[in-house]
Amino acid sequence: MGGMERDVDPPGFPEVESATRRLEGIVHRTPVLTSRTLDRMAGARLFFKCENFQRSGSFKFRGACNAVFSLGREEAARGVLTHSSGNHGQALALAARIRGIPAFVVMPENAPGIKREAVEGYGARVVFCAPSLEAREREASRLHEETGAVFIHPYEDPRVIAGQGTAALELLEEAGDLDYLAAPVGGGGLLAGTCLAARGRSPGTRVYGAEPEGADDAFRSLRDGCLHPSIEPRTVCDGLLTSLGRTPFAILKACCAGIRLVGDESILRARRLLGERMKILCEPSAAVPLAVALEAPFFPEGARVGIILSGGNTSLDAR
Amino acid sequence: MGGMERDVDPPGFPEVESATRRLEGIVHRTPVLTSRTLDRMAGARLFFKCENFQRSGSFKFRGACNAVFSLGREEAARGVLTHSSGNHGQALALAARIRGIPAFVVMPENAPGIKREAVEGYGARVVFCAPSLEAREREASRLHEETGAVFIHPYEDPRVIAGQGTAALELLEEAGDLDYLAAPVGGGGLLAGTCLAARGRSPGTRVYGAEPEGADDAFRSLRDGCLHPSIEPRTVCDGLLTSLGRTPFAILKACCAGIRLVGDESILRARRLLGERMKILCEPSAAVPLAVALEAPFFPEGARVGIILSGGNTSLDAR
Repeated sequence: MGGMERDVDPPGFPEVESATRRLEGIVHRTPVLTSRTLDRMAGARLFFKCENFQRSGSFKFRGACNAVFSLGREEAARGVLTHSSGNHGQALALAARIRGIPAFVVMPENAPGIKREAVEGYGARVVFCAPSLEAREREASRLHEETGAVFIHPYEDPRVIAGQGTAALELLEEAGDLDYLAAPVGGGGLLAGTCLAARGRSPGTRVYGAEPEGADDAFRSLRDGCLHPSIEPRTVCDGLLTSLGRTPFAILKACCAGIRLVGDESILRARRLLGERMKILCEPSAAVPLAVALEAPFFPEGARVGIILSGGNTSLDAR
Repeated sequence: MGGMERDVDPPGFPEVESATRRLEGIVHRTPVLTSRTLDRMAGARLFFKCENFQRSGSFKFRGACNAVFSLGREEAARGVLTHSSGNHGQALALAARIRGIPAFVVMPENAPGIKREAVEGYGARVVFCAPSLEAREREASRLHEETGAVFIHPYEDPRVIAGQGTAALELLEEAGDLDYLAAPVGGGGLLAGTCLAARGRSPGTRVYGAEPEGADDAFRSLRDGCLHPSIEPRTVCDGLLTSLGRTPFAILKACCAGIRLVGDESILRARRLLGERMKILCEPSAAVPLAVALEAPFFPEGARVGIILSGGNTSLDAR
């Protein structure tokens, strides 16, 4: 991708605040739900920010919108481009449709039909390539040169990170004082944005990342102080397979209290509880922070804990 | 049940208002969710009052609480009693636990283990009887004489009806002007309470009942102006098998705009859409009003329609 993925200055709290203003009226202000039963099980008071109800089905819509609506008019007219076939692809497609500009999503030719349909359903053009990272980046690069569309990285882009932080900002506003915030970590955009929001609005709130044991690169990276790539990750959390990004890593090093690991079995149990007890559907990735809260239990007795339920793009079969 | 099911004066709007005050701090103020996709499909603006997130898993908690907290101290001390093994049984058990009084729930001995566990999980005493209406009423009567516990009927009790109306009152407050309100109808407590709330707070709002084709006794009763019992009802909506009650019927005759029938296939499709598009789990009964909204479509283009999503006590398998 050459110049498209150059190092960038990480965003700060002011960028999260201006994202909030930019997203007003476009992004759903999702509800904050609570459950006495889950509180009892965790020995803490949990406040769930329901980004599974967000437009396009996940928090990714916040970052994608912030990027799309930050573009100048001429730049925007050429469209936007990404190579995520997951939630970011859907989110970018919807954001572009709302702004009325083209979106291109590069996808491996073996991607499930349902992902293609979701992205096309939001009006984006899907471009197929061979199923390798190299082919994906080559195709994105070619499309960029051909169309001039702006590449929007799913978690390195500072506008995306700032946008993701708006979820935590709303949660802090609605739930009041929180002792902790917890969010899942894959590429790190959500967790980094959450850290920025807490640092700016509620510096006493400690922010934890929640990561599957089988994809523990963020845990290892923060522990060792250097970026470890995710090698052959194995987890049911298909949204958390990517490696931690450089820009999020810089933010996490400065203001994340730590990463907690948890196994797939606990994650699936937490997801089942969200269905049985709270009647809401989540993707497995979204259940990782609750799984952390229920293990041990992790948070001190009676602590007030905000949890970002990251998304709900999942099959209905919530086993 | 003899004297326990005598004819009663139907409640009015003042009773709904005082229920609102009585339930404050006990009942969840459930969120109102919207979905642009479902709006497009229905050609109307839909506002979903999420009683599937209500404590005990359904709106029934409102009515049960209003009844339980209306009792005088001495009367309450003897406990409460019902013979519903469904949502009302669970709701009454939880309401009684909160007030700190005994609850007795009569259940047929062939009731599914999961219903017994749910009721016992809320601390009520389950009493089994033979699986017939007669045996159920005889057992309830015996228990009443033995313990003095107050029988709380699931939809004839005016305190229960008034309590159910508080959901619509909150919805009208939050969503602002609504052209229509729609609620499922089984025994009729929820629909009657909804009618009272609309008549008192927003007289221009037309209230419709939504009923499965295979359990159309409310439709026939309102059409003919006399109460028809539900005979061998057949529907996936296990919460709507009961016959319309006398007290609700009196209210519906006076202020319900009509009952719309819809088939099980449409109901299951609506329920699937609530999962796929809104990421929430409902029981089939709760999806009946959405099924009505999507058929034809029923509501005029652009109308503002409030829908009571009555409950979420369902298996996770939301097909």
